[in-house]
Amino acid sequence: MSKITLGQDLKIEFGSLIEGSLQNLIADNYSNSRKVIIVDENTHDFCLDYVITNFAELSDAEIILLPCGEENKVMSVCFQVWEALSEYRISRNDLIINLGGGVVTDMGGFIASIYKRGVDFINIPTSLLAMVDASIGGKTGIDLGSFKNQLGTFTNPKAVFIDQTFLITLPQAEFNNGFAEMLKHALIEDEKYLNQLLKMNSETDYLELILKSVEIKSGIISQDPLEKNVRKKLNFGHTFGHAIEGFLLGTEHQIAHGQAVAQGIICESYASFVKGLIDFKTFETISNFVKNHFSMISIDEDDFTSIMQLMKNDKKNKNSKILCVLLTAIGVSEFDQELSEKEIYDVFNYVFVAG
Amino acid sequence: MSKITLGQDLKIEFGSLIEGSLQNLIADNYSNSRKVIIVDENTHDFCLDYVITNFAELSDAEIILLPCGEENKVMSVCFQVWEALSEYRISRNDLIINLGGGVVTDMGGFIASIYKRGVDFINIPTSLLAMVDASIGGKTGIDLGSFKNQLGTFTNPKAVFIDQTFLITLPQAEFNNGFAEMLKHALIEDEKYLNQLLKMNSETDYLELILKSVEIKSGIISQDPLEKNVRKKLNFGHTFGHAIEGFLLGTEHQIAHGQAVAQGIICESYASFVKGLIDFKTFETISNFVKNHFSMISIDEDDFTSIMQLMKNDKKNKNSKILCVLLTAIGVSEFDQELSEKEIYDVFNYVFVAG
Repeated sequence: MSKITLGQDLKIEFGSLIEGSLQNLIADNYSNSRKVIIVDENTHDFCLDYVITNFAELSDAEIILLPCGEENKVMSVCFQVWEALSEYRISRNDLIINLGGGVVTDMGGFIASIYKRGVDFINIPTSLLAMVDASIGGKTGIDLGSFKNQLGTFTNPKAVFIDQTFLITLPQAEFNNGFAEMLKHALIEDEKYLNQLLKMNSETDYLELILKSVEIKSGIISQDPLEKNVRKKLNFGHTFGHAIEGFLLGTEHQIAHGQAVAQGIICESYASFVKGLIDFKTFETISNFVKNHFSMISIDEDDFTSIMQLMKNDKKNKNSKILCVLLTAIGVSEFDQELSEKEIYDVFNYVFVAG
Repeated sequence: MSKITLGQDLKIEFGSLIEGSLQNLIADNYSNSRKVIIVDENTHDFCLDYVITNFAELSDAEIILLPCGEENKVMSVCFQVWEALSEYRISRNDLIINLGGGVVTDMGGFIASIYKRGVDFINIPTSLLAMVDASIGGKTGIDLGSFKNQLGTFTNPKAVFIDQTFLITLPQAEFNNGFAEMLKHALIEDEKYLNQLLKMNSETDYLELILKSVEIKSGIISQDPLEKNVRKKLNFGHTFGHAIEGFLLGTEHQIAHGQAVAQGIICESYASFVKGLIDFKTFETISNFVKNHFSMISIDEDDFTSIMQLMKNDKKNKNSKILCVLLTAIGVSEFDQELSEKEIYDVFNYVFVAG
């Protein structure tokens, strides 16, 4: 059982949930509080029993069921949950437990952070993506139209429990969503970790890799919790990735977050080459590794302008300039790197037409 | 020109907006940022010109117009504003200026605090209520059904500019909304200030009274920004007041916030007497003074249960007990005071039936 402490209030605990400190946390702080567990259709079916049957304090928790999928990470769903919490008379001293993947922890955290100006919440991530990324770092949020995470808060959960038992039932596509973020962590910060990922096989201890990702992410965030500077590095692959994901959201070509980030990583690595920050061989090393794990999508040239429009609304931009994170080597990155429209079209053309 | 500094980031400035530091604040921090001014129909007509014509930097600000009134302090209106901000491509480094009364500063602050996980905002309160209460203290929020301020955040504006010029056009009913909060400040914290309010006449310098109220509120909040303990005192009059206001909201008997708080002050002063914390004479002194400024409403006995239900969902409650702020003397208050259902019915019966 390993623990990482991030900030003064947040505990991240690794290992078996049942053998961990969740029981004590609830007994010490929430014995007189009502508990609400937010799940989606999948975690309702595959994870909820495991939690409820092992923790007597949670046996009479209110259960709130969210519809699955990124397309439901929207205000209208939050609004229904707030109405339910009000109906259940949940007070500011009660506890919300988010049991699920990134959509549940992002949206559940947002719901908790706004309700009565903030109710305590705990994240129990059940997907690899949520374990290595979404459930830690204090970002909560929902989408607004095509704009990903356009509405949200910076609010830390009281604790995060990372138990790899939940990964057993995880489909491959879901696994890839998390793997894309792990790849990102390695590329921006730690070449050695990339080598670990390159050597990954069926014998690999995933918990060790998850721990490494959480350490990298936590280390960056502790320097800059509100994303004023260095935290921006964690957006590597996401300037292009989010725009592509948002553009395809709700269409018949909709793609998973991890696949979108994989496209984004290749785009932004190529942009790093275009800007002369890395050589072509380094770009190719990255590109080949990504392509071993993720299929590339095709994008029609006519759609480049629409994706560019979405990139112009990226949260990381400043003074209407498109800024992104670029690599200067594997494991070394720089944030706030400006890309011109021409450079972006060069990237689109290489990656989605020529490459 | 007086300044009060609350926390490390927030400046509250009193006096002429034009002669103050707004110009420098914008030039120093937001010269390359886009500006958005949020107004309602009234401040659009009566206040916007004054601001735009005196500050060249604001001449090309985007203007967002909210419908007037508490009944529009709701999510559906916020949602339209977020869509507009996205359409205008407002970024995280831009600036929102809330120009208006309590609804505009509460809702505008909420909108800013959620959009892209937080955009800087400045409050320019134009009503007495917003000057002495809503625009300071970092509480943002909107209503959810009958539940007042059920959704919100604790987020401070970057600055608050209090210019009494705006009060000239304020109708009496609006003035009363602010006066009820000033009365509250005096009752919970400062008997001398109550005497100043008692002696108020047409010669009175309102800016001095506003300053006193802001000092009391800021002093309390600086000890407890997140309302874990002593800040709860500022809810005096609001446990009953909010429930009564919420119950009547949207009906033909809808009342203004100040009038609701006035009823709440009398109810909670009477509750203080019922609990033996103050004598009947003290209650009468308070009650008579309040009744000099505010008309009492009548509430049907059949509706007491519905109002009680709303009180049970008050944000300040804990473990399903109804907690409120009671007086132990004029100028001295205690928070987290439990009231039984019987005591609450006693208050209802005395204030709205027998009294």
